[in-house]
Amino acid sequence: MDTANKISKLAQKENLELICTGIPKTIDNDVGGPLQADGIFAVCDHDPGYGSVARNLAINILEANEENKASYTSDPVLVIGVMGRKIGFIPAAARLADPKREIPLLIILPESLSQDDYQSNLEFITEKVNEKLKKQRRCIVVIGEGVNVGDLGILRDSFGHAQFSASEKTVEQVLTNYLNGIDMKDSQGRAQSRLIVKGIARSERPGTRQRREIAYVSEVDREEAYQVGVYAAKLALSGVNGFMSTIVRDYNLPYKVNYDKIPLDTVANSEREFPKKWITSNRVDVTDEFVNWALPLIGGPLPKFAFDRRSAS
Amino acid sequence: MDTANKISKLAQKENLELICTGIPKTIDNDVGGPLQADGIFAVCDHDPGYGSVARNLAINILEANEENKASYTSDPVLVIGVMGRKIGFIPAAARLADPKREIPLLIILPESLSQDDYQSNLEFITEKVNEKLKKQRRCIVVIGEGVNVGDLGILRDSFGHAQFSASEKTVEQVLTNYLNGIDMKDSQGRAQSRLIVKGIARSERPGTRQRREIAYVSEVDREEAYQVGVYAAKLALSGVNGFMSTIVRDYNLPYKVNYDKIPLDTVANSEREFPKKWITSNRVDVTDEFVNWALPLIGGPLPKFAFDRRSAS
Repeated sequence: MDTANKISKLAQKENLELICTGIPKTIDNDVGGPLQADGIFAVCDHDPGYGSVARNLAINILEANEENKASYTSDPVLVIGVMGRKIGFIPAAARLADPKREIPLLIILPESLSQDDYQSNLEFITEKVNEKLKKQRRCIVVIGEGVNVGDLGILRDSFGHAQFSASEKTVEQVLTNYLNGIDMKDSQGRAQSRLIVKGIARSERPGTRQRREIAYVSEVDREEAYQVGVYAAKLALSGVNGFMSTIVRDYNLPYKVNYDKIPLDTVANSEREFPKKWITSNRVDVTDEFVNWALPLIGGPLPKFAFDRRSAS
Repeated sequence: MDTANKISKLAQKENLELICTGIPKTIDNDVGGPLQADGIFAVCDHDPGYGSVARNLAINILEANEENKASYTSDPVLVIGVMGRKIGFIPAAARLADPKREIPLLIILPESLSQDDYQSNLEFITEKVNEKLKKQRRCIVVIGEGVNVGDLGILRDSFGHAQFSASEKTVEQVLTNYLNGIDMKDSQGRAQSRLIVKGIARSERPGTRQRREIAYVSEVDREEAYQVGVYAAKLALSGVNGFMSTIVRDYNLPYKVNYDKIPLDTVANSEREFPKKWITSNRVDVTDEFVNWALPLIGGPLPKFAFDRRSAS
């Protein structure tokens, strides 16, 4: 919204007949100010698109768990790298698949680990993976693409700008290689796994599929995305300049939202953060407060699979 | 089926009361003998699971095309690495998304390129990508995980056995890095892209999600998978030893299959191949014969998206 704000001000200064209206649009939910002390997000409760990406990942985890239950004797660890380079709302959504914490799941946000010491991050994650393996013999790791696991060889264009979506390596591959001990080979070139069980870690990268699969659209998100756009269009047509349309949650239950406007200036100067207090103290999970906040956004109930006692802790 | 065949013979030799019955189960469709001169697959028309994986990829390509239409000014090239290390039935299924060949799509099977000269493979693919970029300004590449693009650092377990699913690098990442020119950096560390347009190539790896998403199950495949299992169970209960249940296509239209049995010995000694004549002469596509064979397996019609003239050639 920074650009919209600048253009809006410039147009006003130059006396141009130009109406600038913002619509929040960011699937990683990084527009809209921090969580306030009263438990309400300052500028925008959530951004359209996020609810569908969250539903997509939640269903992915449920199905990955079925896969992992069947294949863990050879592939005990599955590492899934998900979007959100600087902010962890997307990886956090993995918890929506399993609010009761029965799946052997680690959720790692960029904000949860060290920004500087990648080596300690790799060691820490390995330790946590092995704790899960000891207890449940298998483990699913959801990791945000911005978690610091070392130099990914970020590509720069001819102006020197970082091109985050095309790094030489990816976070899930680096972590998987570390778990498999690719860096430690014996005299015959065989990797020395860091896992305490037999078998390997494998990795997946759903990529842009996270944000473009019609099959996993949240009905709630679809409706809100439409309405927040309608609100913005009406705002622009009414001749008011320099606002963003926004989604305001009515915190009384059942879940309900209203649409409102907020000055672009306010949005441009409010940085969104994943609330620190929503990260659990063990740093590999998010809290029930996050689940309560996010669950209404993903729409109807998730598919159910047969319960397997082996996957319960 | 090799193991089933060996156990069956050993049990017979030792006079054990053991019935061995095979069920074809391989999503990459690599069990069942070659295509015969009469246009019929010798042992098994197709393996259960394949139809759903094919539907999954076809829908993925349709949606990737919508994404790419919107994002090509910054991300003109999307590389999707798919399953099937030795055989190309899975990448071939991308063509089912677009039998009219309107999407700027390259389909690369392990069998289509050189098994030895990875450097010429990389150069060849780059040339083909740039041809698409010249014509349509964007390109989607579907590449089988077994295409030779150089040493992927295949992991070996403590017995020295290859662990294909956990290689140090992946085919889509190696190709993407080559397209982005990560190996060619100037004095300031900026990559020198091999693409003839501005922007980057990015990569995705749907991984095991290809074979486990309920949302994309082919109704045809679901029914056949059940029935071929029923047939095998009945076979075993009838006391006959040493057969695999199989799917036989009735080549009269409309599409219809029957179930039959075939000796495990025959299956174990028939190697499946992707028919060479189903690979187009330009080596980046498959023929209409493949489409005609595969289309009935993926079930009902694919979702439709708005037609965009820019994506037509």
